Amino acid sequence: MSQDEEPPAPALLERLAEGELRLHELEEVVDADRAAEVRRRFIEEETGAELSSVANFGFEAAAATSNIENMIGATQVPLGVVGPIRLAGGASDGRCWLPLATTEGALIASVNRGLSAIRRAGGATGRVLANSMTRGPVFRVPDVGIAAEVVTWVQAHEDQLRQAAEATTSHGELEQITPYVVGNNVFLRFGYDTKDAMGMNMATIATQAACELVEAETDAELVALSGNLCTDKKPAAINAVEGRGRTVCADIVIPREIVEETFDTTPEAMVEVNTRKNLIGSAKAGALGFNAQAANIVAAAFLALGQDIAQVVEGSNAITTMEIQDGALYASLTFSSLELGTVGGGTNLPSQAEALGVVGVKGGGDPGGSNADALAEIVAGAALGGELSLVGALSASHLASAHEQLGR
Amino acid sequence: MSQDEEPPAPALLERLAEGELRLHELEEVVDADRAAEVRRRFIEEETGAELSSVANFGFEAAAATSNIENMIGATQVPLGVVGPIRLAGGASDGRCWLPLATTEGALIASVNRGLSAIRRAGGATGRVLANSMTRGPVFRVPDVGIAAEVVTWVQAHEDQLRQAAEATTSHGELEQITPYVVGNNVFLRFGYDTKDAMGMNMATIATQAACELVEAETDAELVALSGNLCTDKKPAAINAVEGRGRTVCADIVIPREIVEETFDTTPEAMVEVNTRKNLIGSAKAGALGFNAQAANIVAAAFLALGQDIAQVVEGSNAITTMEIQDGALYASLTFSSLELGTVGGGTNLPSQAEALGVVGVKGGGDPGGSNADALAEIVAGAALGGELSLVGALSASHLASAHEQLGR
Amino acid sequence: MSQDEEPPAPALLERLAEGELRLHELEEVVDADRAAEVRRRFIEEETGAELSSVANFGFEAAAATSNIENMIGATQVPLGVVGPIRLAGGASDGRCWLPLATTEGALIASVNRGLSAIRRAGGATGRVLANSMTRGPVFRVPDVGIAAEVVTWVQAHEDQLRQAAEATTSHGELEQITPYVVGNNVFLRFGYDTKDAMGMNMATIATQAACELVEAETDAELVALSGNLCTDKKPAAINAVEGRGRTVCADIVIPREIVEETFDTTPEAMVEVNTRKNLIGSAKAGALGFNAQAANIVAAAFLALGQDIAQVVEGSNAITTMEIQDGALYASLTFSSLELGTVGGGTNLPSQAEALGVVGVKGGGDPGGSNADALAEIVAGAALGGELSLVGALSASHLASAHEQLGR
Amino acid sequence: MSQDEEPPAPALLERLAEGELRLHELEEVVDADRAAEVRRRFIEEETGAELSSVANFGFEAAAATSNIENMIGATQVPLGVVGPIRLAGGASDGRCWLPLATTEGALIASVNRGLSAIRRAGGATGRVLANSMTRGPVFRVPDVGIAAEVVTWVQAHEDQLRQAAEATTSHGELEQITPYVVGNNVFLRFGYDTKDAMGMNMATIATQAACELVEAETDAELVALSGNLCTDKKPAAINAVEGRGRTVCADIVIPREIVEETFDTTPEAMVEVNTRKNLIGSAKAGALGFNAQAANIVAAAFLALGQDIAQVVEGSNAITTMEIQDGALYASLTFSSLELGTVGGGTNLPSQAEALGVVGVKGGGDPGGSNADALAEIVAGAALGGELSLVGALSASHLASAHEQLGR
Repeated sequence: MSQDEEPPAPALLERLAEGELRLHELEEVVDADRAAEVRRRFIEEETGAELSSVANFGFEAAAATSNIENMIGATQVPLGVVGPIRLAGGASDGRCWLPLATTEGALIASVNRGLSAIRRAGGATGRVLANSMTRGPVFRVPDVGIAAEVVTWVQAHEDQLRQAAEATTSHGELEQITPYVVGNNVFLRFGYDTKDAMGMNMATIATQAACELVEAETDAELVALSGNLCTDKKPAAINAVEGRGRTVCADIVIPREIVEETFDTTPEAMVEVNTRKNLIGSAKAGALGFNAQAANIVAAAFLALGQDIAQVVEGSNAITTMEIQDGALYASLTFSSLELGTVGGGTNLPSQAEALGVVGVKGGGDPGGSNADALAEIVAGAALGGELSLVGALSASHLASAHEQLGR
Repeated sequence: MSQDEEPPAPALLERLAEGELRLHELEEVVDADRAAEVRRRFIEEETGAELSSVANFGFEAAAATSNIENMIGATQVPLGVVGPIRLAGGASDGRCWLPLATTEGALIASVNRGLSAIRRAGGATGRVLANSMTRGPVFRVPDVGIAAEVVTWVQAHEDQLRQAAEATTSHGELEQITPYVVGNNVFLRFGYDTKDAMGMNMATIATQAACELVEAETDAELVALSGNLCTDKKPAAINAVEGRGRTVCADIVIPREIVEETFDTTPEAMVEVNTRKNLIGSAKAGALGFNAQAANIVAAAFLALGQDIAQVVEGSNAITTMEIQDGALYASLTFSSLELGTVGGGTNLPSQAEALGVVGVKGGGDPGGSNADALAEIVAGAALGGELSLVGALSASHLASAHEQLGR
Repeated sequence: MSQDEEPPAPALLERLAEGELRLHELEEVVDADRAAEVRRRFIEEETGAELSSVANFGFEAAAATSNIENMIGATQVPLGVVGPIRLAGGASDGRCWLPLATTEGALIASVNRGLSAIRRAGGATGRVLANSMTRGPVFRVPDVGIAAEVVTWVQAHEDQLRQAAEATTSHGELEQITPYVVGNNVFLRFGYDTKDAMGMNMATIATQAACELVEAETDAELVALSGNLCTDKKPAAINAVEGRGRTVCADIVIPREIVEETFDTTPEAMVEVNTRKNLIGSAKAGALGFNAQAANIVAAAFLALGQDIAQVVEGSNAITTMEIQDGALYASLTFSSLELGTVGGGTNLPSQAEALGVVGVKGGGDPGGSNADALAEIVAGAALGGELSLVGALSASHLASAHEQLGR
Repeated sequence: MSQDEEPPAPALLERLAEGELRLHELEEVVDADRAAEVRRRFIEEETGAELSSVANFGFEAAAATSNIENMIGATQVPLGVVGPIRLAGGASDGRCWLPLATTEGALIASVNRGLSAIRRAGGATGRVLANSMTRGPVFRVPDVGIAAEVVTWVQAHEDQLRQAAEATTSHGELEQITPYVVGNNVFLRFGYDTKDAMGMNMATIATQAACELVEAETDAELVALSGNLCTDKKPAAINAVEGRGRTVCADIVIPREIVEETFDTTPEAMVEVNTRKNLIGSAKAGALGFNAQAANIVAAAFLALGQDIAQVVEGSNAITTMEIQDGALYASLTFSSLELGTVGGGTNLPSQAEALGVVGVKGGGDPGGSNADALAEIVAGAALGGELSLVGALSASHLASAHEQLGR
């Protein structure tokens, strides 16, 4: 439908107001950009708010139809860049830049300070240690006797279940099925290699197919395709312990003089802060995250790169360690469940695609999964920079305060 | 400096390349928009990426200088709207719309389906149950004997500590100081009413002042202003149990016929899904979050409204309950630690400010804190809609599957 | 009834077999010792087992009637002794011996090795940091609006609730009521100073009285007198974070040469084991206990001293820290929730009372609570010995292994 | 040495007092019973306590030398019996009695009430769902790159590691090795089928052998044979999620009239208590145990049957579910980590062996592991009785209170 032929906005607003047309039906009568515009006008009238900045976005609304409903525009978040990140990874190698979108002043400066120390120290090491996107349906069974039988059946028919699951996907591979029983509930945690996709949709569809087989062949009845043993977007020990998405670590040894020059503190003071805050403090807080600010970097990178920002929840399951090695500072940051991808989701939106281009990991990798592996390592490297910087700053100010006290 | 007098981009790029000028120093020689432009060109040259969409943003770069460093542009995320949310809250009342920014297709449609059931059922009830932004420094003491003395001193001098803390802020009020001792570590968890601000900066500055008093008057030495007993942006039981930011709940009774018509399922089937998935499944997963998708709504609202998206971590500490009441469905969603504000942070950025305007909670409330309270209730109400919708969908498809099986 | 007049065992066995008499009714027709004897014979006939050792116990069965039903005898557990424990505590002071009952060979030897290092280093410091026995009932309310009102009412009527609660007890004092709301559930965590009693019964009875007042004056209806916010005998972060019973710590600085001579290792090696195992390992395991074997000592002491051994669960919420201080080893062990008493429970049984006598803390203290405080400090001191010894042994063997490798 | 030739007690006491002889050396000069006697006299003199009841034990002290050091006698705990337990298990079948040692009055009566409902309902179903005793050593590696290599090596050499591990044991079988990496720490969780032994010693010795191979063939250096990923005697999500020892469940459907007659309440009221207390309350408490009193039964059974009572910690990782099924009450109790055995540990002590005889599971089973499996099912069945009884009592009293209120 050409714009000329489209119904004029006032008429549409009237129909909306009278309930003849519903807000999400606008795309049925006008194109996506017009629909967004009419919706803005409607919301302005409803609320008295003015909507002009959100209207000022740099892509065709139609490009986002698989990402949003009831679109009224776009949120614009300042985008900066950190780097270069120097990293010897399993999938990434060398130096790269990482765009971060955030509204938290000083975050990028903080990460960059840490990355500068990492560069001067010769670069961090990065490794993806595991990779498995999970979906954990829950079935109801008559009693625990049947539960045991279902588990036995599943374990004896992993090949068939794999076939059923993998028939739904051209890329994904079912890696393991872990059963958990609670009374008359059977949970099966399906774990997939979803290559360069974050993979939750892939995992969901494949698991659905496998569930149908379980239902057909056993006395188990599917109650919910997600039974929270996945666990998606909730803080959960199962992810912190067993991982979800990428389990990835970056570590580094930083010579004493670089610590002193960059952070204005000593390796010993940083180790003390890390131990008392990130280990003992988190222990006392009943935490699943033993770090300083890993989620800040994950959130900013996820936002810039078109990832699912609700998965920052799992991205905060991370442990930072620091120790003295021959007078130098050893530091590591290990994410147990960093869920990300370089295809699908929001990765095709224009600004997000450009940001992935900056990192050099847009689209599917060769071999499959290598782009997402590289991105995981790079995010871990940047977040390690953030840990170093914040722990350094905390310990520098406590050193300063100690000096002050001594001076009295 | 007028744009005419600014050095030309090629010259700047050369100086950047030669290390004479550092990337974050560009604002010292050109204005913010030019700086971002030059940085884009530099990153393009460095990485081979093309940066045009990120350049297309609707605000002056200078407006974001307190929110970002090394700015290269803006990330644009599709923005939609859900509502109307009908809610009888303690601070909000009536109906409103909530903008959500997301790249996850179907999210807004899902929430809207739930909100439609809530509207038809007469609206949800919302309440802020507690409100306290916390900062938890860690001190080192000589031994546990001194630790006990420090705790005693703190408890005896709460008034003085409050004075010291509150002298740093015009709005914040220190509400309580909770001590935790682990060997020679003393953690003090300071809790503040920060009114309409999310308040972490306010809490940090005020706590610093109080810490100086503790250091001056006792044998405790500050090791880190944050000792992770806060706990900020890490999954931690202390937040799930004791709360941080707003503890807020929304609940509703939905008559059976509305459940059936809206979700194509029964109250009983929804209760079963909720119990097996959100309660038993989360229990088995070692979770701190007992819900279906609360983080999705929190993330999308936080992004749209200029909140700190890394705090989605705490925003996922939420429990969903469902039960049958006289044949109808009772559902509730309780967030223990929803950290948000209507002033400060990213709330002044143009698109974010407009989104807050849509909700009607931009800026400081009267009385202080009422805007943030209202926003908390509204987010809880929208997230309750999301819970209803997803649990409804899961149970509808398992009902469908059950029918299919019976039909065989 | 004199033994002569009692019915003969064969007749009783026949009546039991025919169901005329039930097993727990035996005390109604014969005295407690005879009842136990007849029950043994009955169980022997039922199961073919021989019961002679369990019959060989050193107290009158009648003395245990408030501790057991269906008594058939006594379990005998080897009892040893550790010490002297040298400790400068808040309630205990000087040196003492601690009986431990266990079947785990080497446990007592291990603890004694640690205690010997503590003695040589001049003794540990011990402190009770908090003391609160809790009971957490759950109420149902119509909706979250009422939930908020109930919480407000409770906070405004703490004095009345205290009166009601304390009217049921001559010793206990209500210290605080902490409310938690989840949808239409209101949990109130009542915390009491129960002096020298472990105090769970006292807390339960007092809380019941307070609950009646809440029910009478508000729209809350009591669903269960324990709503698991207590939390009793379940691993729970609320106890690890906020404490239950005694929060108690013991710490010590051990000079390098004593570490080397006693444990055949170095302070550095012990710190490394503690950090990698008790802090990082426990963090990765999603633990609430960050120690090596604290539960071993708690279990053995609880058993010897007539405590409730199911509360070893809470007694394992403990954090061990180790660090280097001027070349020496600093070590601490902090229990967040050590629940014990010197009156009531099993403390009056003969062997248990004797064991309390060895420690010197039998019965009520002066002032009230001081005996239980002292016992808590002593158990913490002994458990610190156990931590030192096991961490020492682990690090000695890894040092040995390292030497071996170097020798190759 | 015959008793006549032994040195007289006064002489020994003098030597002890003068430090010529140490307390644990007494067995070198006199026999075990005399040693215990002399130690009692010594402790009496040291502390002023009287030790007569602890002296009154029914076994030769020499029989306990592998279970205790510094023996002074025995602790005697009242022993009762619950049953019959009617249970259709995978390894147990039919009816049996279970001895419980406790000092908590009403516990046995409570369990028996639950068991009576279970019997009337035709008996519970029991199943061991998994069985794996674990040991989780921690290794240090140079960096995360090497960590990844070590993990790869371990996964490629499971057969060799199995051979090394199994060479140390005639019964145990290595089932899996799960690697966890945190920075430069590699944790390997070895899981064994230890048949009828609880198996921690077996697992430790076998793991030591495997660790030597890892150290010899890779750059990993063993830091501690237990790195707390086991996790032994600490509350930890890894056990609650993945299990340790036996994962075992018992469940039952109890007709409405039996619920009403036995517990004086309704299935609906019991489900409500279970949901609000055991599910929602435990969720809010940040718990790993979602039950009412499972630890009580585990503790009492472990004590009676010669188990390691410190492992009650893991034995409290249990979830109780209740739901309505066609008007009847379905109830289940699932232990994730019940660690027990019928050989080794304290199972050979006289009273403990007799108690195992009552259950009919003394010694090794045929096939191996079947006795311990049966015992796990029986403990689960008894504990299910405890859950039913306590939840029933709580709901009966809230029903009573509700009636009272209505009556007003």
